Amino acid sequence: MNSFGRIFRVHIFGESHGDCVGLTIDGCPAGLPLTAADFLIDIERRKGGVQKGTTPRKEDDIPIFKTGLFNGHTTGAPLTILFENNNTRSGDYEKQRAVPRPGHADFTAHAKYGGFEDFRGGGHFSGRLTVCLVAVGVIAKKLLKGIEIQSTLLEIGGEIDQEKGLNKAIEAKDSIGGIAECRVTGLPLGLGEHFFDSVESLLAHAVFAIPAVKGVEFGAGFAAAKMFGVEHNDAIIDETGETRTNHAGGIVGGITNGNELVYRIVIKPTSSTPKEQQTWNRETNEIESFSVKGRHDLCIALRVPVILEAVTAMVLTDLMLLNQKIKPVCVNRQM
Amino acid sequence: MNSFGRIFRVHIFGESHGDCVGLTIDGCPAGLPLTAADFLIDIERRKGGVQKGTTPRKEDDIPIFKTGLFNGHTTGAPLTILFENNNTRSGDYEKQRAVPRPGHADFTAHAKYGGFEDFRGGGHFSGRLTVCLVAVGVIAKKLLKGIEIQSTLLEIGGEIDQEKGLNKAIEAKDSIGGIAECRVTGLPLGLGEHFFDSVESLLAHAVFAIPAVKGVEFGAGFAAAKMFGVEHNDAIIDETGETRTNHAGGIVGGITNGNELVYRIVIKPTSSTPKEQQTWNRETNEIESFSVKGRHDLCIALRVPVILEAVTAMVLTDLMLLNQKIKPVCVNRQM
Amino acid sequence: MNSFGRIFRVHIFGESHGDCVGLTIDGCPAGLPLTAADFLIDIERRKGGVQKGTTPRKEDDIPIFKTGLFNGHTTGAPLTILFENNNTRSGDYEKQRAVPRPGHADFTAHAKYGGFEDFRGGGHFSGRLTVCLVAVGVIAKKLLKGIEIQSTLLEIGGEIDQEKGLNKAIEAKDSIGGIAECRVTGLPLGLGEHFFDSVESLLAHAVFAIPAVKGVEFGAGFAAAKMFGVEHNDAIIDETGETRTNHAGGIVGGITNGNELVYRIVIKPTSSTPKEQQTWNRETNEIESFSVKGRHDLCIALRVPVILEAVTAMVLTDLMLLNQKIKPVCVNRQM
Amino acid sequence: MNSFGRIFRVHIFGESHGDCVGLTIDGCPAGLPLTAADFLIDIERRKGGVQKGTTPRKEDDIPIFKTGLFNGHTTGAPLTILFENNNTRSGDYEKQRAVPRPGHADFTAHAKYGGFEDFRGGGHFSGRLTVCLVAVGVIAKKLLKGIEIQSTLLEIGGEIDQEKGLNKAIEAKDSIGGIAECRVTGLPLGLGEHFFDSVESLLAHAVFAIPAVKGVEFGAGFAAAKMFGVEHNDAIIDETGETRTNHAGGIVGGITNGNELVYRIVIKPTSSTPKEQQTWNRETNEIESFSVKGRHDLCIALRVPVILEAVTAMVLTDLMLLNQKIKPVCVNRQM
Repeated sequence: MNSFGRIFRVHIFGESHGDCVGLTIDGCPAGLPLTAADFLIDIERRKGGVQKGTTPRKEDDIPIFKTGLFNGHTTGAPLTILFENNNTRSGDYEKQRAVPRPGHADFTAHAKYGGFEDFRGGGHFSGRLTVCLVAVGVIAKKLLKGIEIQSTLLEIGGEIDQEKGLNKAIEAKDSIGGIAECRVTGLPLGLGEHFFDSVESLLAHAVFAIPAVKGVEFGAGFAAAKMFGVEHNDAIIDETGETRTNHAGGIVGGITNGNELVYRIVIKPTSSTPKEQQTWNRETNEIESFSVKGRHDLCIALRVPVILEAVTAMVLTDLMLLNQKIKPVCVNRQM
Repeated sequence: MNSFGRIFRVHIFGESHGDCVGLTIDGCPAGLPLTAADFLIDIERRKGGVQKGTTPRKEDDIPIFKTGLFNGHTTGAPLTILFENNNTRSGDYEKQRAVPRPGHADFTAHAKYGGFEDFRGGGHFSGRLTVCLVAVGVIAKKLLKGIEIQSTLLEIGGEIDQEKGLNKAIEAKDSIGGIAECRVTGLPLGLGEHFFDSVESLLAHAVFAIPAVKGVEFGAGFAAAKMFGVEHNDAIIDETGETRTNHAGGIVGGITNGNELVYRIVIKPTSSTPKEQQTWNRETNEIESFSVKGRHDLCIALRVPVILEAVTAMVLTDLMLLNQKIKPVCVNRQM
Repeated sequence: MNSFGRIFRVHIFGESHGDCVGLTIDGCPAGLPLTAADFLIDIERRKGGVQKGTTPRKEDDIPIFKTGLFNGHTTGAPLTILFENNNTRSGDYEKQRAVPRPGHADFTAHAKYGGFEDFRGGGHFSGRLTVCLVAVGVIAKKLLKGIEIQSTLLEIGGEIDQEKGLNKAIEAKDSIGGIAECRVTGLPLGLGEHFFDSVESLLAHAVFAIPAVKGVEFGAGFAAAKMFGVEHNDAIIDETGETRTNHAGGIVGGITNGNELVYRIVIKPTSSTPKEQQTWNRETNEIESFSVKGRHDLCIALRVPVILEAVTAMVLTDLMLLNQKIKPVCVNRQM
Repeated sequence: MNSFGRIFRVHIFGESHGDCVGLTIDGCPAGLPLTAADFLIDIERRKGGVQKGTTPRKEDDIPIFKTGLFNGHTTGAPLTILFENNNTRSGDYEKQRAVPRPGHADFTAHAKYGGFEDFRGGGHFSGRLTVCLVAVGVIAKKLLKGIEIQSTLLEIGGEIDQEKGLNKAIEAKDSIGGIAECRVTGLPLGLGEHFFDSVESLLAHAVFAIPAVKGVEFGAGFAAAKMFGVEHNDAIIDETGETRTNHAGGIVGGITNGNELVYRIVIKPTSSTPKEQQTWNRETNEIESFSVKGRHDLCIALRVPVILEAVTAMVLTDLMLLNQKIKPVCVNRQM
């Protein structure tokens, strides 16, 4: 459901146009110093910059620490953080209820929750909730000392030059998809649990919590389908497990092999597009043309890298705790 | 770890060259009729047929029901099934211990389990354990009445003509990868749980338990990266949620939308290849050339479709129980 | 950790002297009407009334709905409720840090969390958090239509007459323990899961989350140790499973048998007592005499019945959902 | 369901008169030496000795290692152990199906599993499955180096002299109940997780998996109801947390305080008694008199101490792993 992790357990809640979105982390080690300033950079990155193609909805997104923080350090008790929703315009959405937007959860959520779902701005299904993931990522990255996680956008609309890809969308007055990659260095050998909790399983599970993600691949990924065995196999060259190539993306048998972890996700074009499209109208029972109003991104992929880093950090922190590579109490203690 | 599911909970155990491999299903509804004959077809499919490119190791793979079955029906208590390992030749592997095979779990398992792992034939990491998944699939498919799950191999080595792809490998005397697809019809609207337990998250989690899988994509998948919004969005055309196209692969907002579920996985070339390759020798601490002996598939992808069906059925059964679409006691009761 | 339940999942957070305490319920069925007024009676009951022996700390304890509620109904998304801490006097506690209070978590929390724990007023270990349990109970009771849960205080300080027991404490200027009982009628036959998740296991697990509880017994409980088999066995008298006696407390083989569920818990005397006692001083490393200041109950047991009802309702709601006796969407739907 | 533990995860399966009973432990550290001989003493203790009052059914109960053991050590993969059922006489039970035995799961299991349950000898509800708990205990105790767990029978039928209590039952030709106590020394300070996973919660959860247990109390337990605060509070006397008394039973705030862990359970009289009793007949729909045939214990409590030790060890091992007091790979490694 809305929880992830076995030891570092993250719970996410909130709606796009409700009072707030937020999270509780249970199992966060005690003694981690934490301030609102720690969140600034990543939360800013999530906003997608000032470039064209990102939504004009701007939230301050200052983390409000409600529980689990004391004298500037985590206490070991559940850490609860809220982000207020100040900049909402629900009026945009009220009249659209009869018209489930293609590509959005409008129709499926209505069916599943019997019409009781908070439909305003996508409610609990909104990309708004990814601010909670980013917050988790900030904390997880602080716990993952010496491990470097970096995510970049590889392409937009098939173009390696992002501006070019974005211009395609702007010209077409339509939204557009992209591919993001995440690379992690400094990981210890031996993370990942056998059979169902391989590193691939856990990362894949987590990345599909990012709205609009429709695929994930590790190392050579789908290109491996065309490769021969000798070509794909990464020759081990020393006792640290370093390999000559890295088609495996740093994971063999589901377990980190000490090389760089490399994986990619595909982000579909934003469902909300200014272009006219068709859908069925719940009230008239007829198919009608409409175009999505409201403030939306042309390319949601622009915001994804920092979120991808965050879920990666979340998964790895849980595995590091399970494998006793992070202590339950942070060592540089200060009282 | 070695468990999957929230209500229909599957536990997998065993090693390639140990006494047996097996599984326990906890939470299987009572009253499901079950015989060894139910398993024949799928277990036979897993063997990959008589075609070239599959391992000469043949096991009878008759399911041995140990617990949870009474008078030919499931009882509601844990259902335990074993598959004996009769056809093992451990001598093949003993001498290779110093030489961790590239692409295999040899090196990572040794690091993680301190040398205590059962290394014979890959031990607990062996593809041998997929017979347990197939068994789970047989049971899950019986529970999913009216839901049709079909998996096929889309391509081998980049060739849609499988024989052609396989011949590439035979000629090259090397193993080769492939892509498999799974399609599910008859699914109810509304399966999938928000935030972390979307249908995509759960299926992706499960498919990476199949050895050699390195990527997964839903609907249009990675192709979505090049698409515009209006192109990718599937217009809803009636109150059942039927859509004009199906780029979403039957899942919107992480929830089934009543259309066909469509997704694909990539299978890397079998790590064991007859071709010469290089690795580091644990004893000599030098890089050496070697070639893998033993009985192996040239194209493991040939065996994957039935396993992909199985994990799909496993995930969907759990969601159907959670959403109260399957009863805890099967209705056509017979005592 | 701070979560309970498999389908109706409750997460608790907060500290006695922090900003607030709160809870998130994941898996709460959609469509349940809910207002602050629903909470009034049980929250008032938790305050222990105006009688002597309860703490002068009074909080308004108005539930603040943050997420998961829309148009007065639950949405199926996580339901988050906060209770603000307004009436705190942390100054009472600051100076006592060197002196771990016997019977409190001061010493053990300090050891476990390395001194980073929020020690003010017991922090996350405070009885203050039971207001969250009461809130869960209010919601769970609304979901358990037709099931009646009633808890009473059986004795205080060994006296069936509560006033008498309480006067003992007042006269002794010391705190005192008690025994509370919970009875549930209207339960369906068949709740409880075998081996580790019997109704007894789940209720016992949950009641020990209530601070000061040190024992639990079902039906005849500890008295059964002196009984013969024929005496203890409850003769079944008809097809509904009604029994002539109820020494089993409504649970046989870990499963509800359709009779009244009856169980009891013991509540130790409040650790905070006005009486002088001794403890070790962390700073001086000497044993010293002290008496606990601050506002405390003489008999915490007075507040327990409503909390006991709450955890009982929480456990039963989860089992009712698991056994498909409560639907995922409440039926009396209103949009 | 049939699983317990977060890291040291135990799964139990099997039926009294089926092929076998068994268990899988997932998350058992690698490198623990293990032989069938390790199990002899505890399995013998479970048989209750040669004294009167125990069932004449005798099983050899030799553990059959199926998976997870290699070269005499655990591998880190799931450890599966079976115990065959050789000495069954199902004929004893067939004819009794219409007559649900009071105090047994016959009636509740039938209602819950729709008549599909394996009813022979109690099936999955039988005390026979406690041999699996004992096996888990053997392994857990080996992992808990330096921690001493001892359980004794405090009283039978109200008599501290066991022979006297047992004679009561023999004379009355009826079964009888008892109380068992468990004491643990050498535990580190700081085990137990806040709110829902206190040591009391986890132990209480686990002990109710032992058939016939109807109550549990820690330290002073139910006697605390009559105590004053100063009397019950245990004065801390030094920096190790040692206390002058131990009314808390070694657990404060749900966390071990470094003192002896002490707790007790009550075991009801064996439901199967030679005495005549009454029950409802499913076929005739009438109440009838009957007496239980078959081989049964007069005092099941006699077998309980070793089982109580086992579940205690199981819970503590999981907490020790969670708190990183046991390593994922046993240190005295031998390859």
